[in-house]
Amino acid sequence: MDVHGQQKAQEALDVEIKSFFDSAPPLRNIENVSEDLKKFIEMNSSGTRSARKVVCVTSGGTTVPLEQKCVRYIDNFSSGHRGAASTEYFLKAGYSVIFLYRKGTCQPYCSLLPDYPFLECFEFTHGSGIQVRQPYSEAVKWAISEHHAAVADGTLLKLPFTTIFEYLQILHMVATSLRSLGPYALFYLAAAVSDFYVPWESMAEHKIQSGSGPLDMRLVQVPKMLSVLRSEWAPTAYCISFKLETDVKILLEKANAALKKYKMHMVIANELLTRKEEVTLVTDNENIHVRRDPKQVGNEVEKHIIEHIVEKHSTYVDDLDQKVSRDTGS
Amino acid sequence: MDVHGQQKAQEALDVEIKSFFDSAPPLRNIENVSEDLKKFIEMNSSGTRSARKVVCVTSGGTTVPLEQKCVRYIDNFSSGHRGAASTEYFLKAGYSVIFLYRKGTCQPYCSLLPDYPFLECFEFTHGSGIQVRQPYSEAVKWAISEHHAAVADGTLLKLPFTTIFEYLQILHMVATSLRSLGPYALFYLAAAVSDFYVPWESMAEHKIQSGSGPLDMRLVQVPKMLSVLRSEWAPTAYCISFKLETDVKILLEKANAALKKYKMHMVIANELLTRKEEVTLVTDNENIHVRRDPKQVGNEVEKHIIEHIVEKHSTYVDDLDQKVSRDTGS
Repeated sequence: MDVHGQQKAQEALDVEIKSFFDSAPPLRNIENVSEDLKKFIEMNSSGTRSARKVVCVTSGGTTVPLEQKCVRYIDNFSSGHRGAASTEYFLKAGYSVIFLYRKGTCQPYCSLLPDYPFLECFEFTHGSGIQVRQPYSEAVKWAISEHHAAVADGTLLKLPFTTIFEYLQILHMVATSLRSLGPYALFYLAAAVSDFYVPWESMAEHKIQSGSGPLDMRLVQVPKMLSVLRSEWAPTAYCISFKLETDVKILLEKANAALKKYKMHMVIANELLTRKEEVTLVTDNENIHVRRDPKQVGNEVEKHIIEHIVEKHSTYVDDLDQKVSRDTGS
Repeated sequence: MDVHGQQKAQEALDVEIKSFFDSAPPLRNIENVSEDLKKFIEMNSSGTRSARKVVCVTSGGTTVPLEQKCVRYIDNFSSGHRGAASTEYFLKAGYSVIFLYRKGTCQPYCSLLPDYPFLECFEFTHGSGIQVRQPYSEAVKWAISEHHAAVADGTLLKLPFTTIFEYLQILHMVATSLRSLGPYALFYLAAAVSDFYVPWESMAEHKIQSGSGPLDMRLVQVPKMLSVLRSEWAPTAYCISFKLETDVKILLEKANAALKKYKMHMVIANELLTRKEEVTLVTDNENIHVRRDPKQVGNEVEKHIIEHIVEKHSTYVDDLDQKVSRDTGS
């Protein structure tokens, strides 16, 4: 595409994005989110170069309402396990984490617990009241103490979303807030974001009636916010997105295309069935294949992913710092 | 519709239902579900007239996969609160309950707790380990002890589902298993069941690509299983279905139509925004308007709904018993 064509495409995208946000229902308790974010970033950035690195981990699927008074919606499959486990390793590596998660999905430190830990992990005895059930005692102690410590220390900020409208509005707020951290900010976009949506103003107000015949629906594409995240919202942050496919034949090709198209620093390619075992970290100059060692207990693939990212992000920060030093002659 | 027309419609429905079940992906661990059900019904039916009444409460929304290797699906909004709370009141009234619930939705005895009770209700102290946090101590004790008691006594059987395919297959199994209880069986169908689905064989195998342009989808109607539940699966059970609308103007009319069309014994009409405050119990000869008393703490609308149902179901059983006595001359 020539320069003129690129400019045209950019203008078209800007119009799409403006129309998406203009038509989105306004975010509830926007003041609280904004206040929490402000406090969190102040606390976690001292303004010096030794400031803490901050990562925004997005997790879980976004929903697309099909009716304004919503009864039906389209959802993306995601347990939120990847985002939750990655959050643990980022915290361990010294990052502060903004965990932007789908309400109801997996929480950090809880991935080893059963689906309903509250009902499964405790028992009541008339003698001693509520007790942790034996097989879970270590996992429960670890989950509750680590989780509470991170929240209490102010190194973990949790922001829930449900719809695609909420997700993109909060992501926008987070990104512009993190802009001040420059390269110390990292985006780890593990959420399964809807590709298609029904624009709010063209949505049925009431429940769609199932009177007669099939239901035909037309969904339009969600504008690709990754480009504006990179170019406008937080232009010097390190950005990692995910590519999930079910067809392994097209996976790396798709990941590479996304890397170039959205100018990501890294795209993590994963296939639905093997995603807990292995992924490929696709960057400009290399593909790193990461695999869980199944012989080691508690060894999650996220451990290795985060190790690689911490290293790459560190190099990125140092390079930019040196560049700034050179440019300012200091 | 004349008799000939009715027969035609019935034949068309039979074909649709057969095609739905034939094309559905086979239920995983079907043997376990079948075994659990068998044990539960044996335990809760002595074969005499004083046998325990058994209710099947369905709860939460069903999903409709849009891809065979499922990344995207259509979902119906439902927290599962109605089904969970109703289960508590049925157990209290002496019923045994088969709780057919959407994985991840609200569980009986947990409705007063926060969204993530495991993380919110407990704390860890180095002195005394895991403890219940003060404001929740009574609610947690009640939830865990009542829930475990019901499961341990064998009066509560919990069966999870996710997709519309799983839901209807398990409901079919439950209904044919409960047939032996005759009028002592009750169906309380509070689940938000999808009206439209994509037949398995016409479904994309892989993730739908978002390459270019809008996505057009054609969904076909899920065959109305309520009719066959009444006519074939469990013809003498007492059947209650729900009608949820967002437009209050059409609600009672729709509920009445469903009562007649599916030969339900009762349809519970509720409107999305006020459903926790009031509902109307629509039967052949009366409409009972039920309202929560907001002045009484812990007073849920389900308490009053279940009181009315227990009474109606009791009359229904007595009437059928008397009829049998008359017919057999005993």
